[in-house]
Formats: sequence, structure tokens, C-alpha cells
Amino acid sequence: MTNNMSDPLVIAGRSFQSRLFLGTAGYPNQKVMLDALKASGSEMATMSIRRMDLSGTEEGLLDVIRGKVHLLPNTAGCHTAHDARLTADLAREALETNWIKLELIGDRELLYPDIVELVRTTEELVNDGFVVLPYCNDDPIACRRLADVGAAAVMPLGSLIGSGQGIANPRMIELICERSPVPVVLDAGIGTASDAAQAMELGCSAVLLNTAVSKALDPVRMASAMRLGVEAGRGARLAGRMPKRDFAEPSSPQLGLIGG
Amino acid sequence: MTNNMSDPLVIAGRSFQSRLFLGTAGYPNQKVMLDALKASGSEMATMSIRRMDLSGTEEGLLDVIRGKVHLLPNTAGCHTAHDARLTADLAREALETNWIKLELIGDRELLYPDIVELVRTTEELVNDGFVVLPYCNDDPIACRRLADVGAAAVMPLGSLIGSGQGIANPRMIELICERSPVPVVLDAGIGTASDAAQAMELGCSAVLLNTAVSKALDPVRMASAMRLGVEAGRGARLAGRMPKRDFAEPSSPQLGLIGG
Amino acid sequence: MTNNMSDPLVIAGRSFQSRLFLGTAGYPNQKVMLDALKASGSEMATMSIRRMDLSGTEEGLLDVIRGKVHLLPNTAGCHTAHDARLTADLAREALETNWIKLELIGDRELLYPDIVELVRTTEELVNDGFVVLPYCNDDPIACRRLADVGAAAVMPLGSLIGSGQGIANPRMIELICERSPVPVVLDAGIGTASDAAQAMELGCSAVLLNTAVSKALDPVRMASAMRLGVEAGRGARLAGRMPKRDFAEPSSPQLGLIGG
Amino acid sequence: MTNNMSDPLVIAGRSFQSRLFLGTAGYPNQKVMLDALKASGSEMATMSIRRMDLSGTEEGLLDVIRGKVHLLPNTAGCHTAHDARLTADLAREALETNWIKLELIGDRELLYPDIVELVRTTEELVNDGFVVLPYCNDDPIACRRLADVGAAAVMPLGSLIGSGQGIANPRMIELICERSPVPVVLDAGIGTASDAAQAMELGCSAVLLNTAVSKALDPVRMASAMRLGVEAGRGARLAGRMPKRDFAEPSSPQLGLIGG
Repeated sequence: MTNNMSDPLVIAGRSFQSRLFLGTAGYPNQKVMLDALKASGSEMATMSIRRMDLSGTEEGLLDVIRGKVHLLPNTAGCHTAHDARLTADLAREALETNWIKLELIGDRELLYPDIVELVRTTEELVNDGFVVLPYCNDDPIACRRLADVGAAAVMPLGSLIGSGQGIANPRMIELICERSPVPVVLDAGIGTASDAAQAMELGCSAVLLNTAVSKALDPVRMASAMRLGVEAGRGARLAGRMPKRDFAEPSSPQLGLIGG
Repeated sequence: MTNNMSDPLVIAGRSFQSRLFLGTAGYPNQKVMLDALKASGSEMATMSIRRMDLSGTEEGLLDVIRGKVHLLPNTAGCHTAHDARLTADLAREALETNWIKLELIGDRELLYPDIVELVRTTEELVNDGFVVLPYCNDDPIACRRLADVGAAAVMPLGSLIGSGQGIANPRMIELICERSPVPVVLDAGIGTASDAAQAMELGCSAVLLNTAVSKALDPVRMASAMRLGVEAGRGARLAGRMPKRDFAEPSSPQLGLIGG
Repeated sequence: MTNNMSDPLVIAGRSFQSRLFLGTAGYPNQKVMLDALKASGSEMATMSIRRMDLSGTEEGLLDVIRGKVHLLPNTAGCHTAHDARLTADLAREALETNWIKLELIGDRELLYPDIVELVRTTEELVNDGFVVLPYCNDDPIACRRLADVGAAAVMPLGSLIGSGQGIANPRMIELICERSPVPVVLDAGIGTASDAAQAMELGCSAVLLNTAVSKALDPVRMASAMRLGVEAGRGARLAGRMPKRDFAEPSSPQLGLIGG
Repeated sequence: MTNNMSDPLVIAGRSFQSRLFLGTAGYPNQKVMLDALKASGSEMATMSIRRMDLSGTEEGLLDVIRGKVHLLPNTAGCHTAHDARLTADLAREALETNWIKLELIGDRELLYPDIVELVRTTEELVNDGFVVLPYCNDDPIACRRLADVGAAAVMPLGSLIGSGQGIANPRMIELICERSPVPVVLDAGIGTASDAAQAMELGCSAVLLNTAVSKALDPVRMASAMRLGVEAGRGARLAGRMPKRDFAEPSSPQLGLIGG
């Protein structure tokens, strides 16, 4: 699309035409995942790094994705800075990318980020040469701190991972976007296309999602809908929406009406 | 788009590829209106019928739209059944269409429909040979009554006309869509692209809007965003969204994680 | 409470100190119902009129309530004007009250009012000497029409009967209250005490509820909480709340702070 | 009230009958503040510590409050750990209390807490013998960390300080309450009585507010409403609310209805 060509997203010097990043987990099978990835138009796919994926004993996700899109390994499931750093190191070596989506989870049930550890570990990984995209909460000060220590983007949650509840606190996401010196990528909570559109309208630079596509009844169709949703929201943002009003206002002129 | 070709909307026997209907009032100028209409992909445009438009003394909206899209004259500004019927008659004669968007307003400030008069007048106009699309409220019984007396579609409001507040009561719109024997077209209240997407996700067959495009800073860009929003929402609806959950759920498998 | 004494609610010339009306159905047993009624402080209780209740063959609800509070018989379960009128007549004869809560349901599953029939039947019952309190939807024009034909109060729903979803469209309730020439009693949808408080803050004159108390784990305690909720909301309404702001504003003066 | 007597709140060994804490800033005058404090039933009042208040050159807030309620000095306006600690020390010396509401603000415009500094400073003050109640965000991991380092209670925000927007993310407050080993006091964002009731219903142990009372048109009446709102919400919480349902459910039995 012409719009996209003239409105690229740039993170850490890498340019993207698509503002949708897609996760690769939980699809019915690998073919559906690949078709969904294609339908989404995404140029970057996240994948969790586990020992088995990197062992080479089975044909894995890596082989089928590599070369098609950028890989964004993530540290999903890591609860300590130590595990996250180790996972990041393994990912860099095996995948030949220094990009890492940093997840540092503070609670196994909520999968909510641990901000104190996250800021510290982001700084360490940045100093170690990584391009770090930390998964964080909708805390504008945490987002600024992450940017201050070198995060290439910040990735606040809309709502709990995998909940599909959408954006619980839209005003806070909007405030984060207004203040962030680095791109804001909404991550977690997206359940349907209007959620993705809303994220972009609030000022996010991109959206990352997984379950909303992989667990839709028709993942490929939903991937396509998400692509459109992100483009719709970005377009609406750039178009400058009408103000909200507390009262009605006629769209049609009232002069000359019959009975008017 | 292939999706649209295989998923047409049919109202009163007329088939539409686009599920977005656009109003023609309140644009900065006629060129912007025409460009927005084109960008929206809409195949049907609403216009209010006023005496002056039909008098022929000036080149009007009609001349520039006629032939490009279907015309859907509306009775905006009518507060009595008498005025609405008279306006419908004038529109039919002048525009050579028996389609009418019936607005019967019960309050000048809220521009809220008067359901009692609306049901009665819909029936009369249907009996008089009109294809009637009544603008109504988010009342499932009113919607069913309107369908019972022959409305070709029902057009419940999302929120007050021109307010841009979006869909105030999404659950009720969803219940109306589940029950309606005729297409449901969300009309009024849409402020931005995610609102349009949400309407489609709730089960609406189409969206009608005006101010959200005409009063955007860049109406043409917003028209394009609305087009994408409607397509995104329709796609997400057909794809079957994931269920909402009260708790987090990991998208990535937890087996084999470092430290897991 | 002194506040209540100086701020009575008047409906059709009858004065109430309590702004909470309570339904009498669905309690674990009659003792709990009576205790809840007492704890609620309510001065008017609704009850559905069924043939069996009025037959005299069993000691019924009537005997235990009569004399304690005003009775507001309702036409719950009536789907036609004929049944509603017949039920009202029976209630008037048996209960010796001309007050009636008019329910005219248009859909067995949604228990949503049928506005067209409701307006007509309200007028008929008013002409027949009843004090009519119609259960309606959150439609400001319907509410005005009901008042115009003589309703003593209007009773818009917050959300579906028995759903406990609270007030789905608060802005519309607020607009109804601003415009209504008769008292507005929020009826249906209240799930908890904050819902009741919110109804009063939006400008309602009173709240009617049943399931939120009868189906609470501890109905008597919930009845007491509802009483406080209604008083809290009424007090907040009369106190004049602070305006909402889009940004933070310090409550404390900033002058003289350490480090300030 | 008997309810309160048998349901005391205990923080750091101090027992409260009232679950409402009130701020003392921004009232029209000192008399209104004192009357509001009395009407609120609060047993603990917060006040910001500034150099001038403690200098003794003018009759201050302290003199009129001391002895009536517990004092909870706060570090409002502090943007660094150093300033906060210094302010806490001054407060302890001048007010003869080791209780401190710790505010450590990360942004002058949003007045949003800086979680990284807050956790560290809470720990330091606890080690220095303070009873620390930190003002934090609605982050369940931050809340747990604060409790882990010895916070006597955690005080998550409902929405931005002084915004009156209510509870932006109720689900997250509920999750925090379910998990917190120390009392949760909702602090910031309350605008009206139903907000206070909702906080209690979500499981909060108490509510702290200031602007909602001091900037109401009638602060004393609003203080009374807040008292009732907190009691209503606490009562509803203990009563165990009905479940929410997606559909309607009749409160009245359907058997024996006329026309049924």
C-alpha cells in the first residue's frame, strides 16, 4: 500500500512496512501458522526460545520461518534475570540475531512483568550489544526508564497475556505514547481486530499479538483481519479523528428542511 | 477484494460489495466529499432531502453523485410522520429511487428516534412501496417490530448522532444482531475506525457514518481508514474470535524452557 | 437520617424517606425476605401478581408484608396489553392499591419492554385510575411519552433484568434524568451497591432492585449495603461532584516542598 | 455501626473502625476541612509535609487536627528518594509518628509513582523504623515487592491523582487484592461515592481520597456520602454479590401468571 510505503516504522534502524508483529505459538499446525503469517503481512515473527528448538534434532519452526521474516526471539517463561540473559545469549548464537523481546515474568499465573528486574536486565542486555524490546506494563514511568537504559522500543500490555480482553486502560496507553522517546508496541491482550485498530489510534507504533490469531476459529482469516485492523487504526490516527461530544450534532444542514 | 466478492451484503434484493455507507454532509467542500466517497469504497451514499436541493436552481450534490453510487435519501430533520412522509415522497420523485432512510426525530437536542412514530411510519411507507431503512435506537423489540412491518434493514444507533462516542452499549447491539431477521446497519455514533470494526465484530451487516469522516482533519484518509476498519471487523467476525479469559494464558509452550 | 427527612421523594403525592424499592421474589425463604426488606429501609415492595397468590388458599406473601410497607404490584411476565390490564385489575381489587408497576415484555428471553404497547397501555391504565410506573428502556423519547400520557414515574432499565451487569449506558440514564418531568426510578440490572450509588449520582430519584439482594450470598447484609449505596449516591449527587480531568492535578500545594 | 465494630481494619497493629482515609488539602477553608473530616468518620488524615508547616510561625493544620485523628504525613511532591527520606525524617520528628505515606513521583505532569525508586526507598524507610504506606500503581508485582520489603499496606492508584476518573482498570485492582499479603488501600482517582464503593467491592481494605471531597461543591456533604459509599461497598463485598449473567433472568416465578 502506498500509505505504508510512505509511513514506515523504524526500530533500531530497521525499517518495517507492516506494523503488525506476529507470534508463532499455539497454531493448529505449522501450515496454518505459515499461512497466517503470510496473511498478516507481518515482517517480524516472535518465537519463544527453548532448549529443544535449538538442539537441531528435529526440523523446527526456525527452518520454515527463517528467511521469510525477521525473527524476534523472546524470553517467554523466564522468571529471573539470569534465565532471561541465558536465553537471550542462546538465541543470539543460534538465530544469528541480536534482537530480543525481553519477558521477565513476576508471577506464573498473571504472566505480569517484573518492572524492577526488567529495567535492570534491559540495561545489561543493551550493554551486551542486544537490541532489546522489553514486554512491560502500562506504566509511563517504567516505559521511560526502559527507554532511558536503551530499550529500542517499549511493549506495554493491553491486558493480561492470552486474555483477549483488549486494552484495559486506553488512556494510560495514550499517555505512554505521547511521552515515549522510542516506539511503543502494544503487546498482550489483543483479542480481535478492533482492539488492534484501537491500539494504533491511541498512538502505538505497532502491535504484537499471537493468541488472538492462533486461537481464532480461522487463524488465517483472523490474521488478515488483524492486518486490516492495524492499517485502519494507523490510518485513523494519521487522519485526525473528530472530537467526541457529549451531545448530538446533526451531520446534515437544517436549513430548508420540510417542516424545519 | 476476494473476501468481499464472496461475502456480499444484500438489502431488499440489492447486492453490495462494500459494507460501508457514507453520508455526504458537512465536508470542507464538494471535492473532498467526492474523494472521501471514492476512498471509502462505499456503494451507497445518504443525503438529506431539502427543498432547495430539489429545486434545480443550482448545481447540487445530486448531479455529482448520481451514477457513481446508489443514493439513499434520508429524512434528517423530520420531527413528524407527516413531514417524513412528505420528504420521502419528494425524494422518490426527484431522485427516482424508492429507497429511504427514515429518520423520525423525537427531540431536537438529542436527535433521538421516536420509536412509536417510527414503527407506524415505517409501515405506512412500506405499504406505499418504499424500501425503508429506519434509524432507530438500540432496542431489540423496536428492531423486531420494524422488521415485522417490513423494514428492509434496521439501523440502530451506536450513540448520539454526531457525538463520536462509539458504541455505548455493545452487548445490546450484539443481541439485536443475533435476533434480527433483516440486516442490521449501525448508524450514528461512530467516531473512528475501531468503532466501525467493533460494530462489524458484534454482528452488524454494515455501518453508516458521516461526521466521523467529514469532520476528521483529513476526511479522505479517514474514509480509507473506515473502509479498512469495516473490512477488518467483518473479517474478524467471520474468523471467529478467541474467547475472553479472566486470567492470563501463555501463548508459548512452557516445556523445555530454561529455568522452567 | 436527617438528610432523608429533608429530601423526600414524592411520587403521585406519596412521600418516601427511602429511595430504594425492593422486590420480594427469589429469596431463600420468607424470613430472609422480611429481614432483607427491613434492612433495606425500603418503604415500598414490589410483588408479581399471579392467580395463586390471590386465591387465598395459602398464607401468602401479602399477609406478611401488608401493613409494613406500601405494596407495588407488578405485571411481571405479561406479554400482551390484555394480560397486563387484567393483572392490574386483579391487583387493584385484591390489594386495595391503585399503584401498578407496568411490565409489558416484548421478548421472553430478554425480558425487554415493548415500548409501543407500553405507551398505549400506560395511557389506558392512567385513564382507568391507576398510578402507573412503567418499566421501560433507556430511551429518552419513550420516557417522555410515558410521562406525557400520565406515568407517575418512569423506570428505565440499567441492563437486562436479573443480569447484574449494572448500568450499561450511564450517559443515556443521565440524559433521561435531566429531561424527565416525573421521577426516574432505575429498574433492572443493578448487581451491587456501587451500581445503586451510580444510578443516584446520574440523577435518578430512586432505585428498584430484587435479584441483587435475593441472590446475594447474604441477602440481608446486601440489603443493608444497598440502602447505604443509595444514600451515598444521593448524597454525592446533592454534594456536586468534582469535574473529571484528563490529567493529574496535585491535591497538595506544591510551595515549600523539600526539593520542590 | 455494629458492622464496623466487628469488621475492623488493622494496619501495622493499629485498628480502624473507618475504612476511609481523608486528605486535608485544597478545601475552601479550614472550617470546611474540619467539618468534612468529621462527616467522613475518618480516623486518619493525610497531610503533605512542607517546610513551612513545621516551622511554627503560623497556626497550622497540625494544631487543629492533632488529637482528633491519626496523622498520616505524606511525601507528596517528592521526586527523588533523597527528598522523600528527608521529608519522612522531618515528619517523624515534628509529628511524633513513624507512619508515612510514601509518594515518589516519576513525572511532574502525571504524578505517577516511580516503582523502581519506590521499592528501594520503602525498604530503606522500613529498615529505618518507619511504618510505610507506599502510593503505587496498579501493578500486582510491584505491590507484592512492596509488601516483601515491609510495606504495611500498598496504595495502588485507581486513576491519575486528582483526575476523578474513578478506577480505570478494576480487574487489575481485584487481582491485586486477591494476592496481597498486606491491606490494599485504593489511593488516587476517586471522583464520587460510587467509585469508593466499587473499590471496596473489588476487595480493597480501605480508600484514601482528597480532591473528590475538597473540590466537591459541598465538601461536607460529599464527605458524608463517601463514608456511606465505603460502608456500602464493604457491606456488598462481605454480602457476596450475585453473579453477572449475559442474559436476562426473571426475578419473579413464572408459574401461575395470567397469560403465562
